[in-house]
Amino acid sequence: ASRHVGAAMASGRLRCCCCSCCGEREGRSPEELTILGETHEEEDEILPRKDYESLDYDKCINEPYLEVLETLDNKRVRRYELVKWILVFCIGVCTGLVGLFIDYFVHLFSDLKYQIIEKSVEDCSERGCLALSLLELLAFNMGFIFLASLFVLIEPVAAGSGIPEIKCYLNGVKIPGIVRLRTLICKAVGVLFCVAGGLFVGKEGPMIHSGAVVGAGLPQFQSISLRKIQFNFPYFRSDRDKRDFVSAGAAAGVAAAFGAPIGGTLFSLEEGSSFWNQALTWKVLFCSMSATFTLNLFRSGIRYGSWGSFQLPGLLNFGEFKCADGDKKCHLWTAVDLAFFVIMGVIGGLLGALFNCLNRRLAKYRMRNVHPKAKFVRVLESLLVALVTTLVVFIASMTLGECREIPSQMHNTTLLLSERNVNSSIKTFFCPNQTYNDMATLFFNLQETAILQLFHQDGTFSPVTLSIFFVLYFFLACWTYGVSVPSGLFVPSLLCGAAYGRLVANVLKTFIGMTHIYSGTFALVGAAAFLGGVVRMTISLTVILIESTNEITYGLPIMVTLMVAKWTGDFFNKGIYDLHVELRGVPLLEWETEAEMDKLTASDIMEPNLTYVYPHTRIQSLVSILRTTAHHAYPVVTENRGNEKEFMKGNILISNNIKFKKSSILTRAGEQHKRSQSMKSYPSSELRNMCDELVTTEVAENGEDMLQQMLERRHVPYPNLYPDQSPSEEWTMEERFRPLTFHGLILRSQLVTLLVRGVCYSETQSSSIQPRLSYSEMTEDYPRYPDVHDLDLTLLNPRLIVDITPYMNPCPYTVSPNTHVSQVFNLFRTMGLRHLTVVNAVGEIVGIITRHNLSHDFLLMKLRQHNMTM
Amino acid sequence: ASRHVGAAMASGRLRCCCCSCCGEREGRSPEELTILGETHEEEDEILPRKDYESLDYDKCINEPYLEVLETLDNKRVRRYELVKWILVFCIGVCTGLVGLFIDYFVHLFSDLKYQIIEKSVEDCSERGCLALSLLELLAFNMGFIFLASLFVLIEPVAAGSGIPEIKCYLNGVKIPGIVRLRTLICKAVGVLFCVAGGLFVGKEGPMIHSGAVVGAGLPQFQSISLRKIQFNFPYFRSDRDKRDFVSAGAAAGVAAAFGAPIGGTLFSLEEGSSFWNQALTWKVLFCSMSATFTLNLFRSGIRYGSWGSFQLPGLLNFGEFKCADGDKKCHLWTAVDLAFFVIMGVIGGLLGALFNCLNRRLAKYRMRNVHPKAKFVRVLESLLVALVTTLVVFIASMTLGECREIPSQMHNTTLLLSERNVNSSIKTFFCPNQTYNDMATLFFNLQETAILQLFHQDGTFSPVTLSIFFVLYFFLACWTYGVSVPSGLFVPSLLCGAAYGRLVANVLKTFIGMTHIYSGTFALVGAAAFLGGVVRMTISLTVILIESTNEITYGLPIMVTLMVAKWTGDFFNKGIYDLHVELRGVPLLEWETEAEMDKLTASDIMEPNLTYVYPHTRIQSLVSILRTTAHHAYPVVTENRGNEKEFMKGNILISNNIKFKKSSILTRAGEQHKRSQSMKSYPSSELRNMCDELVTTEVAENGEDMLQQMLERRHVPYPNLYPDQSPSEEWTMEERFRPLTFHGLILRSQLVTLLVRGVCYSETQSSSIQPRLSYSEMTEDYPRYPDVHDLDLTLLNPRLIVDITPYMNPCPYTVSPNTHVSQVFNLFRTMGLRHLTVVNAVGEIVGIITRHNLSHDFLLMKLRQHNMTM
Repeated sequence: ASRHVGAAMASGRLRCCCCSCCGEREGRSPEELTILGETHEEEDEILPRKDYESLDYDKCINEPYLEVLETLDNKRVRRYELVKWILVFCIGVCTGLVGLFIDYFVHLFSDLKYQIIEKSVEDCSERGCLALSLLELLAFNMGFIFLASLFVLIEPVAAGSGIPEIKCYLNGVKIPGIVRLRTLICKAVGVLFCVAGGLFVGKEGPMIHSGAVVGAGLPQFQSISLRKIQFNFPYFRSDRDKRDFVSAGAAAGVAAAFGAPIGGTLFSLEEGSSFWNQALTWKVLFCSMSATFTLNLFRSGIRYGSWGSFQLPGLLNFGEFKCADGDKKCHLWTAVDLAFFVIMGVIGGLLGALFNCLNRRLAKYRMRNVHPKAKFVRVLESLLVALVTTLVVFIASMTLGECREIPSQMHNTTLLLSERNVNSSIKTFFCPNQTYNDMATLFFNLQETAILQLFHQDGTFSPVTLSIFFVLYFFLACWTYGVSVPSGLFVPSLLCGAAYGRLVANVLKTFIGMTHIYSGTFALVGAAAFLGGVVRMTISLTVILIESTNEITYGLPIMVTLMVAKWTGDFFNKGIYDLHVELRGVPLLEWETEAEMDKLTASDIMEPNLTYVYPHTRIQSLVSILRTTAHHAYPVVTENRGNEKEFMKGNILISNNIKFKKSSILTRAGEQHKRSQSMKSYPSSELRNMCDELVTTEVAENGEDMLQQMLERRHVPYPNLYPDQSPSEEWTMEERFRPLTFHGLILRSQLVTLLVRGVCYSETQSSSIQPRLSYSEMTEDYPRYPDVHDLDLTLLNPRLIVDITPYMNPCPYTVSPNTHVSQVFNLFRTMGLRHLTVVNAVGEIVGIITRHNLSHDFLLMKLRQHNMTM
Repeated sequence: ASRHVGAAMASGRLRCCCCSCCGEREGRSPEELTILGETHEEEDEILPRKDYESLDYDKCINEPYLEVLETLDNKRVRRYELVKWILVFCIGVCTGLVGLFIDYFVHLFSDLKYQIIEKSVEDCSERGCLALSLLELLAFNMGFIFLASLFVLIEPVAAGSGIPEIKCYLNGVKIPGIVRLRTLICKAVGVLFCVAGGLFVGKEGPMIHSGAVVGAGLPQFQSISLRKIQFNFPYFRSDRDKRDFVSAGAAAGVAAAFGAPIGGTLFSLEEGSSFWNQALTWKVLFCSMSATFTLNLFRSGIRYGSWGSFQLPGLLNFGEFKCADGDKKCHLWTAVDLAFFVIMGVIGGLLGALFNCLNRRLAKYRMRNVHPKAKFVRVLESLLVALVTTLVVFIASMTLGECREIPSQMHNTTLLLSERNVNSSIKTFFCPNQTYNDMATLFFNLQETAILQLFHQDGTFSPVTLSIFFVLYFFLACWTYGVSVPSGLFVPSLLCGAAYGRLVANVLKTFIGMTHIYSGTFALVGAAAFLGGVVRMTISLTVILIESTNEITYGLPIMVTLMVAKWTGDFFNKGIYDLHVELRGVPLLEWETEAEMDKLTASDIMEPNLTYVYPHTRIQSLVSILRTTAHHAYPVVTENRGNEKEFMKGNILISNNIKFKKSSILTRAGEQHKRSQSMKSYPSSELRNMCDELVTTEVAENGEDMLQQMLERRHVPYPNLYPDQSPSEEWTMEERFRPLTFHGLILRSQLVTLLVRGVCYSETQSSSIQPRLSYSEMTEDYPRYPDVHDLDLTLLNPRLIVDITPYMNPCPYTVSPNTHVSQVFNLFRTMGLRHLTVVNAVGEIVGIITRHNLSHDFLLMKLRQHNMTM
């Protein structure tokens, strides 16, 4: 009964919670904000950190790449494609095997545990030594959890479900260590002990993470954790390829976990896709299929000894929903039920919002009070959770259960596909023959089995039992998620929701008299409603659930429930994964900007304070720039200045830069030449006559002249002309805002590689003798390029000059300063960009836009500024 | 036996066919090509036509749109979103109802037909009056087909499956009349008669087309066919919204046809998506679900009288694949079977390639010899096909069938979900008790029923029957597709393939002795292999088939088969839909360019011959441009000229243009102002001190000065300075290639709208008094904007000036001339662009890229030119 008070308190807390942590976005009025737009509310001190590096999905078509391209013929392209297919197959198989490993040992350990405990309880129920059984159970659980925490100590990013991290990665943000082999091992072994240790955690999230690690690591054929094993396989060394393979791996993880290959594919599309890439999606689907059926093959083989058949789809399987053969009046669901499903969706959304809200507060508390302390404090917290969970499970099972009758009439076909027969997993603690202890049946089984019980058990669970179970489970699961052990959230949410759904069905059957409803459907819908309320996924979750039930007719109810749950939940706060991403301060890009944001243009949100390099730069300047700034890319620019002609004579560096500018900035002459050539193909003879070589050379000369004129037109006195010094912090405003013609973008990693490899020439030589790096040399160190601080400066001659033009990206995407934010955002997100340069109408760079400039909070701040200045 | 000769001939034809029509792409050597790259092989005379207008998916953020934006608040945005959800729901329901209508009448008419004919045959088999039965059948079939052809005469685009057209639409090409209400009616009614008339056509393609029409038409709340019904609902009047709704409608069509909501969603993604739009996909899935379950609700209600339950998923349903309960050795498929599936996939791919090849030749023959003739010739061809089909069906059933035993042991649960019990649909013509005529069972049923027979009938079909059936069906279906009646291809392909698969299963069982294989699986895989070989769809087809079988464990075999079939087929030719698109000459954009194409840059492929307008232009010039060119958009440019100062005094038009140029081209001063403002928010006090108003005004003045300098620097003698005349064909090279600064893009339809609505000002007035059009006024005439030739020129004063700057798109996407083709292609396709301007490093427009410049043939031609000049 005291639990009911708890529930009431919880609903009270819900309201206060919504005022404080959920409504904060609406709560801010413009008056509260300073002009700087920075708010320091107590709740929001976690600002975006700059240590999450962005991934670059854009192809950089520079000269080394073009050299590779020249050697490409159709045969090579096809071979390359074939290698990709083989790799995605391997990723699928490996992910399946990881799933198999986790599943096998979870079952092994927990079967062992439950057998011993059950025997002990049965013995003790006669002899009255239940305390001994409890101690045994405690020893098992706390031992397992201790091991799990130890693994997380080795690799801290292995904690949690992994889905927020993978979401970030697919969105384009690299989180350090997240796709390393060591993380995979710690996560897989950790989650195994964690589930076997009876914590209210699932293994689905960690499975997805594992898949992603496999996807990231396998095509590289190398690992830091296993430095000794090195293959010479220098392909796929780019963020683009890696992100594609991670998509495939994550999809395979979902596919293995839920037996849902299509759902997995949609998951990686939903979380990661920038644009719909047909060839990639087809590979991802194949990868998912491979994972599902690898797992299926091995599990069918191990369990039934029938190698070569495929009988056990995924790790999580909802069994077959089916009316009893004789019952003509039974329908899985009817149009009337849909109305109840909508209401259940609303309640599920509310419960999910409460869950998220509580969990967010808890996570903040942990960030402030647990994480800064010594690491063993985290282990102690895990052990505390394990202790409390074990006590609750044991005491509730022994004292709060009711004895219910086992239904005599069985569905013989119901669980053909599910692992264990429903009735083989019921627990009869202290109950007379032909009855069973309903609370123990839910608590003393693996969570997957408990879900099957709620879906398919014809024998009823008492409403009181279901309520108590739901409340206990809700709060314990909420507490557990975020403890530093590997822990998924899908299965606990499903179980919790299934209890709620079954409760609704029981109430409808018993008190409203709707005897023809199918309880299993209600349990399923309840599970969907609660899970949807917590995670707020849309398309992929719908498809995953449809595939897990293997029943297409559940499409509509599941979809409607998820929609309603999401809408209700979104009214209060974000999904739990988004909340955790937010807490980590990762600048995730949403799907699209709000319509309002279109009041802003690119020039409003860009970063105008640029650090740039020249096409030909002294090593001295480069090192200085690299050491004093933290940017990941530098625009390559030349200045629009007047007195260039005299400078060209004086200094090889400056004259090289001016030469490059001439050849690149006003290619008008060349373009006119090309144009007139292409005009030749037009039929008009009049035109053709005009386009002889004479005209074009004349035009070309004209162009040169015009260029010269243009170069001479400006004469602004700058303090240091063509500085050998890097653009530095001490510059004046004017220096910062010189007219700079934009030529391209070069990455920090590329600059460092050029320096490390000694690509440079001396003042007395021509720039053409500078050594050339091939594509594979440029990418050899991927993904861990050397740092500028590792450079041995004594080996570098600071006066030498680097010609960076062959290595820069000569035509990155650009936007005009007047472009509206929605268009900028679309371009940036869809193309998976890392840097977007803002270039004005005469080709001068005026700013740069990165992920941080497009994050929701930043845009909101700028919009407020904009509205205030209006 | 003569049919076997036919099959042998067919395989002979396969080889010759592959040499002639399938290998043509490889066949061309560079030597055969002229410098112009235009080849006039006899096979390829169908060149892209310009009458397919492109759709524009890009948002045009011009001033009217910004005015709308100003009025937007969160409440309105939400209401707008809600309206969209309601609309997609309505689209789903309506599509479902269209499906129901087709299905209901097909069943009604064909039940009637078969009942009468069967009775007549049974009577006649005793009395020997079979000729009479044949005549009755002929009368029915030819009557129905005649009606179907008549409907196609009314609306010629209603012919065929409609999938190629929808594919084009979703790809971004508008085909005239394809989404009109009249087309919907003709297609729906036509296909109904066509299927009832016993032709070998399916109703799935037309269903998808119908869904697309509903999607396009419903949110417009108006129709040309029903001019009188006009609602005042002026939303969603843009290509962008329309294309989104068409995606939803097409998905709903697939969902209704196959009971495959997820497959439908993936279909519209695969065919149409530019980028992955989360919110849109979620709506599309909801639309598909609505369609599926509307159909399900009504069909369950009509058939079983149980309104409110959902028992009959889609129009096409494969029934439940299930081993007999007792049989422990039976597996639906095993790892060993997979090897056979791969081989079947290869053969399916070959058969599909042959089918496509023959059908392509036939289509070409029709285009040359049938289409130019009077319309009734097409009707005659349809009647001929109907005649031959009927004769073949009747004679084959009566003479070539074998009597096989009906299996005594039944699967009682097998067809719980399918419409008709397998054994209720067998035909016993001339066969003794307890046996049935296997040929008649296949031919004398609806095709869907025949497919179910092949999938689930335990009684065997004789290999000879299956072979004859396959060959007859193959050639007749091939002949039928392309006749001018509404005709889908899915069901005929599935049936044909199922016969082939069942044949393989029979051969394996009988001659190889593999008695444990499950024939249904082989029939399914055969169907998938042949269908995959014909249509070459990938992801969506896999999912559609998985959903139609409602059995997730078939995922791997179906996917592997489809992959192999596609790869095999692609070796010879394209999928049938792509072939028909190609024959129509629609410039479809592929998924991506080949790697080789990156040797080309934007300047190689762009159209350099531009027709442009000035920001302020006289009506006279606009009308002249609009009447003499066929472009759909015009760049808005100003010229970079020297002696502007004197001109500014002389002519209001010219001075307005120069003013605009000043305000727009060198916004550097303004940007610096903004920059320095944003610098204020940086904490450094040093910087803040610098940025007082004094500095910024100074900078602004500087900027003006620089502008003035720049404007003055060039003085090239042009023949007609700032012409009132439009840029015309008579211009010289120099005139064509003046330096033109790019400011924006304006659509033809926008220009015409401005003219029609009298947006202009006279020379003596200020341009600010020009009347302003609101967003809804600009889009009121969508999608049929008035033509320039409809303008009443007497009402227009040619000397008045139009200020088009508020209505142009001021910041369309641009690329540099050096951008490589893959990047251009990606940007163009992903963003769903219609025009992409090529702008050089100093902001001058040098060319424009449209869909035609990116079509595969055009790129190939340019690549050849490029390789030759190298």
